Amino acid sequence: METIYEALRKYADSDAYPFHMPGHKRTTGWLTDPFQIDITEIDGFDNLHCAEGIILEAQKRAAKLYGAEESFFLVNGSTAGILSAISSCVKKDGRILMARNSHKSAYHAVFLRNLDVVYLYPKTIKEYGINGGYDSEEIEKILESDDKIEAVFLTSPTYDGIVSDIKEIAQIVHRHRIPLIVDEAHGAHFGMAEGFPKSAVENGADLVIQSLHKTLPSLTQTAILHRNGNRIDRERLMKYLQIYQTSSPSYIFMAAMDECLTQMAKNREGMFQDFQKNLSDFREDTKGLKMIHLPSEELKGKDGVFDFDPSKLILSVRESKKSGKWLMERLREEFHLELEMACGDYALAMTSICDRKEGFQRLSHALHQIDLQLCEEKKTGNQKESDKEKSREEIFNKKEEKILFSLQKMECAARIGQMEEEETERVAWENCVGRVAGEYAYLYPPGIPLLVPGEIVTEGLVKQITYYRKRKFRIQGLSDDSGNTLLVSLKRM
Amino acid sequence: METIYEALRKYADSDAYPFHMPGHKRTTGWLTDPFQIDITEIDGFDNLHCAEGIILEAQKRAAKLYGAEESFFLVNGSTAGILSAISSCVKKDGRILMARNSHKSAYHAVFLRNLDVVYLYPKTIKEYGINGGYDSEEIEKILESDDKIEAVFLTSPTYDGIVSDIKEIAQIVHRHRIPLIVDEAHGAHFGMAEGFPKSAVENGADLVIQSLHKTLPSLTQTAILHRNGNRIDRERLMKYLQIYQTSSPSYIFMAAMDECLTQMAKNREGMFQDFQKNLSDFREDTKGLKMIHLPSEELKGKDGVFDFDPSKLILSVRESKKSGKWLMERLREEFHLELEMACGDYALAMTSICDRKEGFQRLSHALHQIDLQLCEEKKTGNQKESDKEKSREEIFNKKEEKILFSLQKMECAARIGQMEEEETERVAWENCVGRVAGEYAYLYPPGIPLLVPGEIVTEGLVKQITYYRKRKFRIQGLSDDSGNTLLVSLKRM
Repeated sequence: METIYEALRKYADSDAYPFHMPGHKRTTGWLTDPFQIDITEIDGFDNLHCAEGIILEAQKRAAKLYGAEESFFLVNGSTAGILSAISSCVKKDGRILMARNSHKSAYHAVFLRNLDVVYLYPKTIKEYGINGGYDSEEIEKILESDDKIEAVFLTSPTYDGIVSDIKEIAQIVHRHRIPLIVDEAHGAHFGMAEGFPKSAVENGADLVIQSLHKTLPSLTQTAILHRNGNRIDRERLMKYLQIYQTSSPSYIFMAAMDECLTQMAKNREGMFQDFQKNLSDFREDTKGLKMIHLPSEELKGKDGVFDFDPSKLILSVRESKKSGKWLMERLREEFHLELEMACGDYALAMTSICDRKEGFQRLSHALHQIDLQLCEEKKTGNQKESDKEKSREEIFNKKEEKILFSLQKMECAARIGQMEEEETERVAWENCVGRVAGEYAYLYPPGIPLLVPGEIVTEGLVKQITYYRKRKFRIQGLSDDSGNTLLVSLKRM
Repeated sequence: METIYEALRKYADSDAYPFHMPGHKRTTGWLTDPFQIDITEIDGFDNLHCAEGIILEAQKRAAKLYGAEESFFLVNGSTAGILSAISSCVKKDGRILMARNSHKSAYHAVFLRNLDVVYLYPKTIKEYGINGGYDSEEIEKILESDDKIEAVFLTSPTYDGIVSDIKEIAQIVHRHRIPLIVDEAHGAHFGMAEGFPKSAVENGADLVIQSLHKTLPSLTQTAILHRNGNRIDRERLMKYLQIYQTSSPSYIFMAAMDECLTQMAKNREGMFQDFQKNLSDFREDTKGLKMIHLPSEELKGKDGVFDFDPSKLILSVRESKKSGKWLMERLREEFHLELEMACGDYALAMTSICDRKEGFQRLSHALHQIDLQLCEEKKTGNQKESDKEKSREEIFNKKEEKILFSLQKMECAARIGQMEEEETERVAWENCVGRVAGEYAYLYPPGIPLLVPGEIVTEGLVKQITYYRKRKFRIQGLSDDSGNTLLVSLKRM
């Protein structure tokens, strides 16, 4: 028997290099005495849910760093921030304009509040099979035609680093006198240095949620919520923060957040300079790759992409016969480089100020090795013996695939909140087309639902699910562990 | 400027002794490498929300230790367990039988699900001004007369260590074919050794929520939910655990829970033997106190008290002119002993297997010193100069006080869920009698609402609030920071 700690310790002692969250990359040396500083709300140590002492002071420092009027530490991740933001901005049974590529917690808020959702679909970057940004004009049009919408909820940056034009969108949303909530979970480092996108806080969003652990040196599960302006009912926001978060918040978490942001306030300049040097050296080093492509600057200016987070390394193998999953596994097994995720025909490496030169060099070296092999294979048509079995799975129709990777446009037959008490039956995927979904289906990461309860299953969706299942992706959200079936409403359309 | 960490470190280096949560008492030496083991859901490290590997194995070990069919680690405290348990057991807009002395998170679940609540009031232990246990017959009677009730939610032990007869209550509740949920947040150590009460898990409850950090050596914010039997919709329970908890759960928390419970499985016998010896020595040492009384065994068998947790030290100063708050402050300021809470005319010290003999001796010594002074004052009628100012506040009518400390019986005019969109106005407390509350009022700790939105304010409640405010207790839940006013519904009854 091995405990969780023992497994984690063994992994920490291995030579595996983390190109994934958390942003501290296991290098930070703070808090070596977690139990000694782990207290409860005793005299002099304030109360997160009613902050007026050292926690309030720390939150004020955070607000100053990001340029927010007010910031709230979150000990239940960005999840708590998203639940609270949506719950406080939209009345029960009310209506929200929400990006369809939102994190599942946004759908959970919609469920808990029984909201009616108008979905905004991001554009698609067809060359790489990833979600682009949002179309400001489309937002304008929707808001013009629907005055029941009480708030707008968007994700920027995306998991892949795609940034939308939040400044312009905020102006549009504010003209309609409603608040803009931005899930900036992957952008806690935004605005920290030249060369990185500005934060949505600076760009005029009313509520911004950032995961501190994702891209900065803070502990997993720590996040922050920023508020600006008077479109937000502050009392209501604080009520929901109390509802969705434990009444025994961790002082270790609060200390970690404060240390992280205090470090940023003091030393971010030097840290980000080194980071940018590493990033540009790496991009230079990998310029010569032939079969693996790393999109970056060229993404900007089309498909709704306003800006791109250079810390996200999209490793696209679209030119080859391989999948992103193959690349991710190859990097893990042969080079001991652990990536953040694989999806379709790219894999994603996440980097931060805590990455070391050595890590970038290892990744560059590994990509060159793999690239050589892919070039060889392309030339000879032969594949490495060890890859033959795998690649049989990987050869697919590239044309079809473009359809498969995009977020499918779905039609809603019922609110998520209405589906809980619906009578359902379990139906094999191939027989689900036209039926109303009774549960979610999503990949984790990134945790964006492909299918939401109340949506009508399409043929395209079934193809997409089948594609992922064939390639051994675990489809989460399904109550059927085998993944073979879906719960659908007994009622037929 | 001092960071939160620096303040915590300074406190850790002081000679303050913790008679409060967390149960590890800042002594545990595990996890000195928190950042090194803080990872995300990478290959081989499972996923809390979809556990099938090392996390599932750890949860299985926990279930075995407690005798549950299934156990779930909670990274958002008992709060997440209580929200999930109630949400999964009672349909939206449905009805629940719930103890009125429940933690605020139970009220939050009621709000989120717009539940109709039938309240069960605990009995009162008049001699000490604390809540007793529940009356099984009363539960039986309510369930007999109301077949709309879908679940029963109780708290046992209470903050003070009062245990109800869960075995008998479970039998009653199960005869009505509904589940019993027990908030056992303060009883994670139950059933670990002879001399301590049995756990509600063993006594037949369907869902039991325990805070691991409160009484065992685990980190603050960690908790566990146990499930037994088939009255619970497992899928629905897991759905809500995903909703109310972050999608980035802390591996530090999961490792801490696993280490804690692995330790318990291996070494609990010796640890609890030493603890019991310390406890019985302490009770022996303090037997001679004249003005400070420590109730324990004599509580059993009346006022609904089935059993009592000997680890809770209720330090009652009812015999004196002093209040619990005075005692708590005296112990802090003069003896550097930090207690868990003060309420009315007692203060509460929490102890655990991590307490050292030295701590008990310091507390015993301090109590003897204070007791001597109280005896002296009683004899001479004089008070120490330094206490004079304070005691002016403390001299009150003992008869009146008995009324003041009990949980007041309140009448509901509306569901909590209906109050969110009610138009309200701000009214001074003295003018609130007869009005419908628009917000909570509670003391933290313990976090049990004195007043709940939708309840009609009584004269007794206003007296109680006034009593606490005069004594500088901070009334939480109020939107008015000064505490002078309450939001009440514009509509009059």
